[in-house]
Amino acid sequence: MHLLSIDDITDDQIGDLLDEGERWFAYNRQPRRNDHRLDGLTVVNAFFENSTRTLMSFEIAANRMGAQVVTMQVEHSSIKKGETLEDTARTLNAMRPDALVIRHGTSGAPASVAQIMDCPVINAGDGIGEHPTQALLDAATIRQHFGRVEGLKIAICGDLKHSRVARSNAKLLARLGAQLRFAGSPSLMPDHLEGVTIDEAVDAADVIIMLRVQRERMEEDLGDAPGEYLARFGLTEARFAAASANAVIMHPGPINRGVEIEGALADHPSRSLIVRQVEMGVAVRMACLDLLTANRRR
Amino acid sequence: MHLLSIDDITDDQIGDLLDEGERWFAYNRQPRRNDHRLDGLTVVNAFFENSTRTLMSFEIAANRMGAQVVTMQVEHSSIKKGETLEDTARTLNAMRPDALVIRHGTSGAPASVAQIMDCPVINAGDGIGEHPTQALLDAATIRQHFGRVEGLKIAICGDLKHSRVARSNAKLLARLGAQLRFAGSPSLMPDHLEGVTIDEAVDAADVIIMLRVQRERMEEDLGDAPGEYLARFGLTEARFAAASANAVIMHPGPINRGVEIEGALADHPSRSLIVRQVEMGVAVRMACLDLLTANRRR
Amino acid sequence: MHLLSIDDITDDQIGDLLDEGERWFAYNRQPRRNDHRLDGLTVVNAFFENSTRTLMSFEIAANRMGAQVVTMQVEHSSIKKGETLEDTARTLNAMRPDALVIRHGTSGAPASVAQIMDCPVINAGDGIGEHPTQALLDAATIRQHFGRVEGLKIAICGDLKHSRVARSNAKLLARLGAQLRFAGSPSLMPDHLEGVTIDEAVDAADVIIMLRVQRERMEEDLGDAPGEYLARFGLTEARFAAASANAVIMHPGPINRGVEIEGALADHPSRSLIVRQVEMGVAVRMACLDLLTANRRR
Repeated sequence: MHLLSIDDITDDQIGDLLDEGERWFAYNRQPRRNDHRLDGLTVVNAFFENSTRTLMSFEIAANRMGAQVVTMQVEHSSIKKGETLEDTARTLNAMRPDALVIRHGTSGAPASVAQIMDCPVINAGDGIGEHPTQALLDAATIRQHFGRVEGLKIAICGDLKHSRVARSNAKLLARLGAQLRFAGSPSLMPDHLEGVTIDEAVDAADVIIMLRVQRERMEEDLGDAPGEYLARFGLTEARFAAASANAVIMHPGPINRGVEIEGALADHPSRSLIVRQVEMGVAVRMACLDLLTANRRR
Repeated sequence: MHLLSIDDITDDQIGDLLDEGERWFAYNRQPRRNDHRLDGLTVVNAFFENSTRTLMSFEIAANRMGAQVVTMQVEHSSIKKGETLEDTARTLNAMRPDALVIRHGTSGAPASVAQIMDCPVINAGDGIGEHPTQALLDAATIRQHFGRVEGLKIAICGDLKHSRVARSNAKLLARLGAQLRFAGSPSLMPDHLEGVTIDEAVDAADVIIMLRVQRERMEEDLGDAPGEYLARFGLTEARFAAASANAVIMHPGPINRGVEIEGALADHPSRSLIVRQVEMGVAVRMACLDLLTANRRR
Repeated sequence: MHLLSIDDITDDQIGDLLDEGERWFAYNRQPRRNDHRLDGLTVVNAFFENSTRTLMSFEIAANRMGAQVVTMQVEHSSIKKGETLEDTARTLNAMRPDALVIRHGTSGAPASVAQIMDCPVINAGDGIGEHPTQALLDAATIRQHFGRVEGLKIAICGDLKHSRVARSNAKLLARLGAQLRFAGSPSLMPDHLEGVTIDEAVDAADVIIMLRVQRERMEEDLGDAPGEYLARFGLTEARFAAASANAVIMHPGPINRGVEIEGALADHPSRSLIVRQVEMGVAVRMACLDLLTANRRR
């Protein structure tokens, strides 16, 4: 079993992952942790794109369950020199890992690798494809806060066209019964999605998920100064005032303060769940590693 | 005891390493591994040259026996700024590792470091010097496949002049009783070796070890397009047809498909041992670490 | 409790850290080490500046007590892209580490981070601020050698203006009762310190601590050739002859041989404690991690 896309998991598995995520969340707050269920298992993190926070989250998750963790950061590696992805996968597979976590700049690369591997593969973000553990941690954070996802009005706002986070979230939150609205500038909306303005999306919303602006992209496609982007597409205090009375703010991080979100909203003591998402990230990834390696541990 | 060169190990030790390598090979295929013989020992990997696959192989090998593994990648480190190799070695030694695995661009660097260290040193490749664990894993792979090395006709083909893999393999396979033939373009043959053409080397051979072409070198010394190199010096299906009926193909990786080897041959389901070599690599390195640290664990 | 500055620890704690450092020093020389007091704890090393030797020292220290160690090297990471230090700290904190070791190019950065973290923070060097574990390991090395620090004449020589090592050492060694003298070129002396010439500082000194010359700075501020720096401000055999009969030489490393110190003095078999400092470094860092995490382990 792999976790390449939200499509790979059943509704029951989603429910279990969210339950287990909450359990590990509490566990990680304990002063000392003695879980050893992955003792004697090798978890390989193969990161072909830089990502300090996601990489650390997976490393800590695997460590907390006793796994041996080996990380390959290809951004500064020699594998770039000419070896095909398939040959790299065959090499990794021959080292007999028990789980492979892969991030890659090309959509579909983790799926190609999974066809070669004998162990479960977790997609930690592929191009503009998916980022299923981010969607799971977002759902777990929402469910922990509201007690449910079903029926919540959730706005996803920003560069929806290039966001693997949005893509996985749209799938998962819809399956969990949320009412989704998508907002982005016309050039940042994928063809198959019907978008609304940020003001329409935020209106009476329970959850507002802001996406990170890729600054490189901003200059090229939008030609906007940071302040202009915020004014036209970002989450400001004025806009947030139109949301539901108990609305919460989420963001996959890292944040561009003053670009897609006003700093004060990111730091809001009761309404911002942004830091909570990071904490849930380690917990949900523990649940994923646990589920995927279960049948290797009998 | 160090493992800097094939010359450092006795015939008995070679036999033991190949036996133990095969045993660890089977062990690594088990669903869960609980060996702890290196518990409480520190293995330091000091890689002064990039090498993702060899580094990961050593990291996984040490982890699988319970060692604490610390890796120093100098390619992106501050040690480059002016400290002598001897001073770096004195620093590493003062941290009291129990084994040091070192890769370095300069031939002889591991031997210089070993004179300073109080712990065993394993040469993981030095300049155009040696790469003894690669030779051991190659021999173990051959022996596992054929049941013996003695009497086999083994062709080593490619840039023999600059290949530490070829150098260590020539020593080890000769000691194990193989009949060796060496093939390379005239500019790529070391002075002391008598070379034959690739066609002569492959003729009736049991094992064909193709070496990686360094693309940098190819442009400078050979001025060949990839296709030309393959036609003149590489392993093609036509050439391979002249080998023994049960011949196998090996390559230390990473492969340049269509340069030194045709892709279909690298992927041959029964004749290519290239992926098997990687798997044996972890196993043989476990055997090496076990042997070298044995007297630190009483 | 944090260890950001020598000012953070009481005289009793300093005494305990030096005692425990000596104990771990002996422990690390044992053939096998089985301490597990940090089992189940996560130690995060966040290095925003390159530092192979300090990073390895902390990694080995934490490993030797059984901690799970996760390292973030920001020099080659994506965090550089726009995230504020405070946001990075919030992210790290949400991953629930049990200790954070931080090196940063900006003075005061570890203190800013510590205000956010719920776990103890150890400053592993901040700009021209402090480097408290270096001072502790220096004091432990001196005390191990002489049996005391009190009353010793200690010269600290070099770029005092920009040296966090000098700053922490000046505080700690003064508190331990040493008689300190400072020597540097006029442009390298901080305003609040009264400097003497290198000859005056070394005269009858028991301990001479030479600081590393930053080669970048040398060209800009001093315009000296290496030989000129040695002649004017460095430790030469001629100068060392004027020190106390039992004087010892120290240096935080890495050494610029022939710049701030003559190579033969750095290698002096009985007078140079430079390698001993590295060994004590791992030991003292174990003592620091043990002290700071003590109340998380009940």
